[in-house]
Amino acid sequence: MSTMNVRRISGCPCCISRRGFLGTIAAGVVGLAASKTKAQVAAPVPQMPGLVIDCHGHYTTEPQALFGWRKRQIAALNDPGQTPRPDELKISDDELRDSVEGAQLRFQRERGTTLTILSPRASGMGHHIGNADTSLAWSRVSNDLIYRLVTLYPSNFVGVCQLPQTPGVSPANCRGELERCVKELGFVGCNLNPDPSGGHWRDPPLTDRFWYPIYETMVELDVPAMIHVSASDNPNFHATGAHYINGDTTAFMQFITSDLFRDFPTIRFIIPHGGGAVPYHWGRYRGLAQDMKRPPLTELLRNVYFDTCVYHQAGIDLLTRVVPADNILFASEMVGAVRGIDPETGHYFDDTKRYIDAAPSLSDEDRRKVLAGNAQRVFPRLAAKLPAAASTSGVPR
Amino acid sequence: MSTMNVRRISGCPCCISRRGFLGTIAAGVVGLAASKTKAQVAAPVPQMPGLVIDCHGHYTTEPQALFGWRKRQIAALNDPGQTPRPDELKISDDELRDSVEGAQLRFQRERGTTLTILSPRASGMGHHIGNADTSLAWSRVSNDLIYRLVTLYPSNFVGVCQLPQTPGVSPANCRGELERCVKELGFVGCNLNPDPSGGHWRDPPLTDRFWYPIYETMVELDVPAMIHVSASDNPNFHATGAHYINGDTTAFMQFITSDLFRDFPTIRFIIPHGGGAVPYHWGRYRGLAQDMKRPPLTELLRNVYFDTCVYHQAGIDLLTRVVPADNILFASEMVGAVRGIDPETGHYFDDTKRYIDAAPSLSDEDRRKVLAGNAQRVFPRLAAKLPAAASTSGVPR
Repeated sequence: MSTMNVRRISGCPCCISRRGFLGTIAAGVVGLAASKTKAQVAAPVPQMPGLVIDCHGHYTTEPQALFGWRKRQIAALNDPGQTPRPDELKISDDELRDSVEGAQLRFQRERGTTLTILSPRASGMGHHIGNADTSLAWSRVSNDLIYRLVTLYPSNFVGVCQLPQTPGVSPANCRGELERCVKELGFVGCNLNPDPSGGHWRDPPLTDRFWYPIYETMVELDVPAMIHVSASDNPNFHATGAHYINGDTTAFMQFITSDLFRDFPTIRFIIPHGGGAVPYHWGRYRGLAQDMKRPPLTELLRNVYFDTCVYHQAGIDLLTRVVPADNILFASEMVGAVRGIDPETGHYFDDTKRYIDAAPSLSDEDRRKVLAGNAQRVFPRLAAKLPAAASTSGVPR
Repeated sequence: MSTMNVRRISGCPCCISRRGFLGTIAAGVVGLAASKTKAQVAAPVPQMPGLVIDCHGHYTTEPQALFGWRKRQIAALNDPGQTPRPDELKISDDELRDSVEGAQLRFQRERGTTLTILSPRASGMGHHIGNADTSLAWSRVSNDLIYRLVTLYPSNFVGVCQLPQTPGVSPANCRGELERCVKELGFVGCNLNPDPSGGHWRDPPLTDRFWYPIYETMVELDVPAMIHVSASDNPNFHATGAHYINGDTTAFMQFITSDLFRDFPTIRFIIPHGGGAVPYHWGRYRGLAQDMKRPPLTELLRNVYFDTCVYHQAGIDLLTRVVPADNILFASEMVGAVRGIDPETGHYFDDTKRYIDAAPSLSDEDRRKVLAGNAQRVFPRLAAKLPAAASTSGVPR
């Protein structure tokens, strides 16, 4: 990779034309891949200044037809003969384009994001609804839509899949869909729901052997999972305001108390929403680990990463102060939990790149890691996607 | 209250002898009470520099006899004839003294805390165990022990009670014990468990009318509640690392989505453990409230307070940066969730006063509010306790 090429595009990525910028990335990635093949250099990830990867985006602007299909599927739970077939879902490419042009794509342009790792709406996964067949059909339909979006916009989106989880059913039954999404659709990871029961928490903790079959497949495929609950079926928990954050906090504490990463030393999990409550209570978790004679949290950080879906400057400042920069992945959750503009700043609450840019604890190198380098390490299959992204001439219209 | 008296004892409270310090408090409180009676001045709380009230302490150093009694009570659930009588619990005053001298009282002295608002061990409440009779008997036994400690150490402790909650049973059945503790034992508040089912979250949200009977009694008695879950009966949730924090986060989000404080405009709740995940996600909560057309969070802050049980400097810095100083109450949770010494600082993780002292966002006036003034507002019945505390000649030995 030419250092001169890199230097030529240094500076604010918002000021670089998308086409020129992506072209430079393509040259860099292809060059690095070639030199790696020749010399087997252990360079961890290509360094591409200006690259910004949002590791947590959901397709939350779905056409109404998708909701109609899901409604029919749920209505048919008591009358299986009425179950809709996947091919009865009719959504045109134009409808797909319309659904993201004014939303995810506009925000990418406005905020200077290069690529978004896109998955189906998290609250829509609804693993607690119906049975394993329901969940498999709905996951396939949802993942196929992501694939179509990725195919329409290879320079903007990379896919992550929903898994066909069902309460009380072994996650072994998710292996097939994960393999299909990774091997056939080119997805780079999955979302794993630690509570398929939807707020009742009836399945075993993530550290139980119950979950091992899906971990084995993740390791085989070298894809990470974002630990992400779905809708809340429990009136105590508001989905995005309580259940999501509780799920994050719960998962991290499960990891502290187990030896899961001894069994899966290379597995990687991303805890979204800034890690739930964890960074705010970093002292509590360090202290609990110590009291319980568990390893220091730094050992967990070989396998656990936090995203930056924290919607104010003070929160990002805390995250970047206590969690090593190597373990933070840029994300906005857009279009997600909070859609409004913060009257205190005049900017969207979920325009998290602004907070990263202003975080005083991050050096320039740290910031590059957070914005792109770490995502490339955690999602190794992204490497194959960057040249494809760069070869596309910007956003289709 | 003489301004000169106040000025004379300004400076680090650790450097003031306990007897002289409490004497000054007594003079101040009595003086203020007298002047208030005369002039009906609307002064909110007496200003007493150096006063430090820890609003969240648990009796977690109980003699073994208490565990033995509880064990017998639980064992008798299937054989009610074996249920132990309260008077079968034998703990001497000396045993009580021994249980706190080297723990809570030592930490008070070492850390410069004047008074601790003490309640039974939170994880020990175990509302999910047995039935309403079990819970009532256990609550009375636990609260009576707190009363004995408060009586032995009136200058060190003020009582807050455990409520005899039971899953699925109306909190109306807690009114009697709350009234007994406040009117007969002189307690100043209660701990309210938002999830009596112990991690299964089977009762309605705190904003449901189900809970109104206990709120009515709280308002009548003018006592606040700390919202505090108990043990986790769900293997997904580590008690102090997940269930506690999730309970805090959940409660706050319930408040955002309801009009509870329209029905109870003067009720006051303290959310412990620094408010769970809330301050870290303050932007998320502001944004969610705005998206849902709910009032701004500042309106909730008329009724909701956060404690400072956050065990590292960065966490307290965040809390004091985003939450108004009027809504933060000093607390350490000692002897509580984390008992060790932080190898990074050489001090106990839960020595939270150090973090408050160093928090850059707090002015001296803010710090006085956090350390004592706010507790006096939120627990109005404390006013009657401060002269009693001051009249005692220090810590009994």
